[in-house]
Order: sequence, then C-alpha cells, then structure tokens
Amino acid sequence: MKENLGMPAFKTVRGMRDFLPKEAKMMKYVEGKVRKIAELYGYKEIITPVVESHELLAAKAGEEVRLRMYTFKDLGGRMIALRPEFTPSVARFVATTLRNEPRPFRLFCVGSLYRYDEPQQGRYREFWQSNFELMGSSKPEADAEIIMLTNSLMEAVGLNNCVFKVGHVGVLRGILSQEKVDEKTENEVMQLMDKKQYDDALKLVKGAGVSGKCVATLGKLVELKGGRVFEIIEKMKKYVKSYEMAVDAVENLHEILKLVLESGCEIDMTVDAGFSRGLEYYTGMIFEVYVPELDIALGGGGRYDRLIELFGGEPTPAVGIAHGIDRIMMAMQRQKTLLKTGKENRVMVIPVKSELKGEALKISRMLRDADIPVEVEVMGRKVTKALEDADRRKIRYAIIVGEKELNEGAVVIRNLMKREQSTVKIEKIIEKLESNS
Amino acid sequence: MKENLGMPAFKTVRGMRDFLPKEAKMMKYVEGKVRKIAELYGYKEIITPVVESHELLAAKAGEEVRLRMYTFKDLGGRMIALRPEFTPSVARFVATTLRNEPRPFRLFCVGSLYRYDEPQQGRYREFWQSNFELMGSSKPEADAEIIMLTNSLMEAVGLNNCVFKVGHVGVLRGILSQEKVDEKTENEVMQLMDKKQYDDALKLVKGAGVSGKCVATLGKLVELKGGRVFEIIEKMKKYVKSYEMAVDAVENLHEILKLVLESGCEIDMTVDAGFSRGLEYYTGMIFEVYVPELDIALGGGGRYDRLIELFGGEPTPAVGIAHGIDRIMMAMQRQKTLLKTGKENRVMVIPVKSELKGEALKISRMLRDADIPVEVEVMGRKVTKALEDADRRKIRYAIIVGEKELNEGAVVIRNLMKREQSTVKIEKIIEKLESNS
Repeated sequence: MKENLGMPAFKTVRGMRDFLPKEAKMMKYVEGKVRKIAELYGYKEIITPVVESHELLAAKAGEEVRLRMYTFKDLGGRMIALRPEFTPSVARFVATTLRNEPRPFRLFCVGSLYRYDEPQQGRYREFWQSNFELMGSSKPEADAEIIMLTNSLMEAVGLNNCVFKVGHVGVLRGILSQEKVDEKTENEVMQLMDKKQYDDALKLVKGAGVSGKCVATLGKLVELKGGRVFEIIEKMKKYVKSYEMAVDAVENLHEILKLVLESGCEIDMTVDAGFSRGLEYYTGMIFEVYVPELDIALGGGGRYDRLIELFGGEPTPAVGIAHGIDRIMMAMQRQKTLLKTGKENRVMVIPVKSELKGEALKISRMLRDADIPVEVEVMGRKVTKALEDADRRKIRYAIIVGEKELNEGAVVIRNLMKREQSTVKIEKIIEKLESNS
Repeated sequence: MKENLGMPAFKTVRGMRDFLPKEAKMMKYVEGKVRKIAELYGYKEIITPVVESHELLAAKAGEEVRLRMYTFKDLGGRMIALRPEFTPSVARFVATTLRNEPRPFRLFCVGSLYRYDEPQQGRYREFWQSNFELMGSSKPEADAEIIMLTNSLMEAVGLNNCVFKVGHVGVLRGILSQEKVDEKTENEVMQLMDKKQYDDALKLVKGAGVSGKCVATLGKLVELKGGRVFEIIEKMKKYVKSYEMAVDAVENLHEILKLVLESGCEIDMTVDAGFSRGLEYYTGMIFEVYVPELDIALGGGGRYDRLIELFGGEPTPAVGIAHGIDRIMMAMQRQKTLLKTGKENRVMVIPVKSELKGEALKISRMLRDADIPVEVEVMGRKVTKALEDADRRKIRYAIIVGEKELNEGAVVIRNLMKREQSTVKIEKIIEKLESNS
C-alpha cells in the first residue's frame, strides 16, 4: 500500500483482508462447488446471523475459542459476539425452528467467521467456511456420508493427494471414563492430545490416579497411526480390549471406514488412534483433511451426539464437517489448480463522438440481452485511446459506433487479437461475435 | 419458537434472523442474478471485511448511520465497527490497492451489513446488499449505466412495475451554495429533505438568511415531481435559471435520462426535484427504485465525485448503487415471483438390510457422478418407513437395494408419484431415472 501524504491512509484492520477480483472469483468458485455437492447429497442451505448472543456462542466452545471471540455489547446492552464457528447457530436453529420436524436434517451454511487469533500465513481473523450437518442419525452410514461428501468436495474443486486423518474420541474418552477420570480432567487431556502434547497429557492422566494399565494403553495408542487402515484398527482393538466403551468406539470407527471404502470412493485415509480435536463437543468419529502442500487442515469434523440437547433441543444425534474455504483456496493456489469458469469480458463498445453515446448504450443493451458481456466506453476518450485500453485489458472485440456506418445501419467490429476489422450490419453483430472470427 | 422447559432457550439476538432453506435459496438466486448482471456489464467482484476501523466507517457516513453503527473495541484495543454500508470499504480499496491502476474501475460487492435500527417489518439489524461502483468517469453515460444495470437486475429477478425515482443533489446544493449557506446547514437541509420534512427544511433555510427568491424557488422545487420526465426537467430549468450551478445540475440530469431512454431500455422513471438522500457524500444524480407493493426502496445510489479523495486516494469521480437484497426478496414474495431453478432432490436410496449399506452408498456415488442428486437412508429404518418419509417429502424415485435383486446385479426402482415399481439392472439405473418413467 502506498501512503498518500497529508491524507488519512485508511487500511484494513489487523488480521482482516480484502480479496481482489481474482481471489474473489476463486472463493465464489469454491462456494459454487460447495452448493453443487450440497445439492447432490441433499443438503439444504440455511443462513444464520454473524452476530449471536455471547451466551450461545460460548456455551460449548472450547476454552481457546471462547477467549478469542469478538465479544461486545450492542447499543441495547446485550452481550453479543461474532460467530467463531457455525455449529452453535445450527444447533440453536435445530433446537427451535426445526424442533418438531421429522428427522433426519441435512443442512449446510456458508459464510464468514471471526476469531481473534494471532495473524500468520494463511490464518486471518475473518475466515470462511462451509459447514455441513447431518442430524438425527446415529448410524455409521451418516458418518460415512460426511466423509464421502468432503471427499467429493475436494475432488470437485480439483485438489489432488488429499489425505483424511481419522480417529474416534470415544476410544480415549472411553478409557478415561472407565478409569473414573473426572470430566474436566478428561477435557484437558483431550485438549493436550489435540495439541500433540502427549507427554503432558500422560502426566496429567497419571496425576488423576489411573491404573498402570491405563497409562500403558494410552502410551501405545498415541504412537499408533499411519499404515494400513484396517491393520491399525485391529491393533487398536487389541490394545483397548479391557475397556468396553473404547472397544465399542473402535468397532464404530471400523464400521464407518468399511462403509466409506465399500462405496467405492477413491479416498486416502489414515487412522490416528491418539487423534483429538479442540472443541469439547465431539462424542464419536473425528476427522481432518490435508494436502501435502499445507500443514493446516482444509476441513475437520466429526460426531457430536449430545450437542442439540445442550442447546435446549430434543436429543438428536449429529455428525458434521466444517470446510475452510480460504484454506481450500490456498491449497488450490499451491497446487496451481485451474478454475473451470465461463466466459470473460470480451466486448467493448466505443462511440466515435459524444452524440452517439445513446446508440452505443443501445447496442450494448442488445448484446447483453443475447447474454454477451459488454463494457461501454464511459471515459469520453478518443477511439484510439479507448482501443489502447481495450488492448491492454485483453478485450477481444471493439465495436466502434461511427456516424457514417450508422447511417447504413452498421458498425465497425475490430478483432483486437487478429488486428483486423470489418463493417457489420447491426442485426448481424451477435452472429459475427459468436462466429469468433 | 417453542420453549423447552428446564433448558436454556437460545434465540437469535433482537433484530437478527435466520433464513430457512426456502428463503436461503431465494437469496442465493438473487445473488446469482447480481453476479450475472455484473458479468454482462463488466463489473469485477471484490470482497472486503465485515469488520473495519471505526474511523473509516464513520468518516463520511451521515450522522444517523454513524450513531447506529455496531462499534466496539477488539482484544487489541482497536476501535472497530461492523460495516453499515459498502462504500467506505470500496473507497479504501480504491485509495490503496488500486491507487495506481488505470481508470475506469467497475467493481461490485455482495454481503451483509449492520445497523442498530429499530427492527420493523422488512428492516433488520443484519441486512444484505449488492453494491456496484463505476469509478473514474464523470460522464453522464456512467450515471446512465448504473441506472440501466439496476433496471437489468430488477428484470433478471423477475420484478414487475419497478419505478425509478430520480433527482440531482446539485440542484438544491447549487442554490444553497450560491446563497452562501454554510456546509453544515446545507447538510442539515438535505437530511430534512431526505425525510420529506420540507417545512422544517425551508424554515432552516430562511433562518440562514437566504433571499426571498431562494425560498420561493425551493418551495416550488419540493412540489415538483411525477408527471412526464422531460416536462419536469424543463420546469426545473425554468425555476432555477438564476442559479448557475443548479442549471448545470439540471442539464446533467437531463443528459443522463436522455441516454437511459436512448438505450431503448424499458424503464419507468419519475423525476423528483426535491429528492435528497441521507448520506452526505452524494454530489450529483441520485436515484431509488421502488415497486408498488412496498414503500421502502429496493435500491438507491448516485454520484459521489469527491469520496475517494476524502478517503486519501487520487481524485476519482464515481457513481454507484446499493441494491437491498433482502428487500428485493420481499418484493419478489409480494409479487409471487417464481424462481427459475434447477432440479430438486429426486432420488432416495434405501438398503433393505444393514449389510447392504455399503452397496447403497456405492449406488448413490454412481448417481452423483452422473450429476443426479441422491439422498441415502441413514436412519436404519425399514423400507416401508423410509418410503413413507420419501413420499412425505415428495421425493420422486426410491431405489431399493435388496439382496435378491443385487445377486442379479439389479435394484428395485419405485416411482413414488405413479406408485409403480420395476427391477432395473444397476448399469441401467441412470437411463431409467432420466427417461422420467
């Protein structure tokens, strides 16, 4: 940004950013693919406000998110905040508006979210997500669907070499709860696990007075990741076999992954037995998607069966995923993904003199009615100047509206690529442009 | 909303609202039309943050908007606010990022805005706009283009009987400034005019010590509206003839309207000589769009030639328009406008028993690859229950995946409208569904 001496130099607030036309186009491209996938999988869009009550947003967010929310009072003294994630809003919506509707619900949202994190490469304080929720089913095919649709989205935007890291919070939580670790400590352990601070997590567990077997089991689990999916699953089963709830969790994970693979979708999955996610509300399978070019997840989600209840709704099992739209964009940039988009601006209409401006507008209107994008010269420049500008911006055709030609019901069409021009009757302009000659 | 006894009943913050799937679809439909019109007229999208510095947003907003902004401190102590309009952000963008780029710029934004107004029918504290700006041209064809593209948008979304109310702030401001009324009083007069408090406005003008001729002229102007466009224009010219700047303003308005009509676009315009708009930054033509069914404007804009300078950029003449997306939606609802949208969910895949879930997912994947929207049964219901649900939701086809048929590489397809079913080979499913039988 260049400073303007003596004038206020306004800029974006720290952590916020503008998207230039090329970036905005990419974001809208990704959003278009999100809506396409939603349609193919039967998800309906809802739009919830950016501003929600602080109480709602703070209710089940992890400590870390809670402290980094944009919280403030509105002019009526209400404590409000900018949403740091979509899930509480969707839960509120389901607990109220959809309260008495028959299950399942397939819902999605797309929009901006706000967290006061330290800005760094690829992390901003305003960021975009698409969020899919499948509510009402506790079955493994629901979990499988959420993984599959995320894979479909990654394919649709053209990303290659995506890896799905998959785990199940029920494994660790099952062990800890059978060892009578209190819920607060359990949550702290899960958060340390999420940050891969395994030694601190194990230390905390030991301090909570668990058995030696428990410590040994957890120690083996956090080491268990990668390799062949079903081999890891079998090892998990072996390690946790004396913890009933953990065994159920591994079985559940096994079923989910089997369904995903049986569907025949091409997907690269890797199981991580010690995998945890920051938000407290997960109860089952969890997963994240990565590409090799970035070390931050492009998306993450899982199952949270008690959430709707916690927001005052009917007990509703649920599984969901948030896709980081700006992160997906970053991955596409790294992988140099090409956007498959429609036509660009191709035509500029230039009146030769001021009296012909109305005619120029009339011709532009005719072309737009035929679905042809048109720019009209509005700077009052001479034809040569306007043509130079059109050339610089790689516009393909200039339509020059002059008196002589107009008297014969015609204009001059100049092909700026081929540097040739011809006189064309007004009723033949569209034909001429579409013949691409 | 129904309350859940004993549980916290979360709701949207006062003035905020959720959009149900049907409403969300309508909003995305309107946004799609906005992007289509942008493409046809050569406007590029930029995305600016919802959160901007308070200083930027307050700089040129009218008093009324300034006092109703969502203003607060972020965790770093910065005084920030939620944008109440797009124009300051676009001006910032042009004054910095585009500083040295050749003119003209055609830019648009789409998104949500925030004002702490008293909620009422059709007015919320979070609302949506599309905002088009044509910057760099002071010519009347630029003003004409902004009016024309707004008309194109109204046509594209299917609204009927739109009326464009058009005026020019240069008429009143020209008179007041020739009468040496100070800028502060001038702005107050314009704001009273905007609220149609003409008597108060005239009283204020008298108090500022203007000539009797001035009061008489203003009195005639505020009465002058409706009727045939060019007759009104001629009357305006007559009334203001001793105020040079006002004469220029009427001439400018005349030229703009002539160009719009010469373009051949079908548009219902009405001139209002006493028309003013609340924001202080307008310098030329101003306009608003209405439909008979609503008494609030669906869009409003005009020319503001000094704005970019005020934000620290190079002097850049500019004309722009904001379209109220939720107001357009309201008008469409009142006019019962039909959305021209694509296919709805049509197919539900139901496995007969749990062991066939993988097969059901596989078939759903195959259909989605062929661009057919599919829901999979994820509730573990018996076929009859699942069919009842599909029927209730007006799904057209159920694909029933059973063991017997599967052994012969086939499934049962049930047409829920016609209540008939047949066994179809898996490789023939797509053909069958697309034959619509």
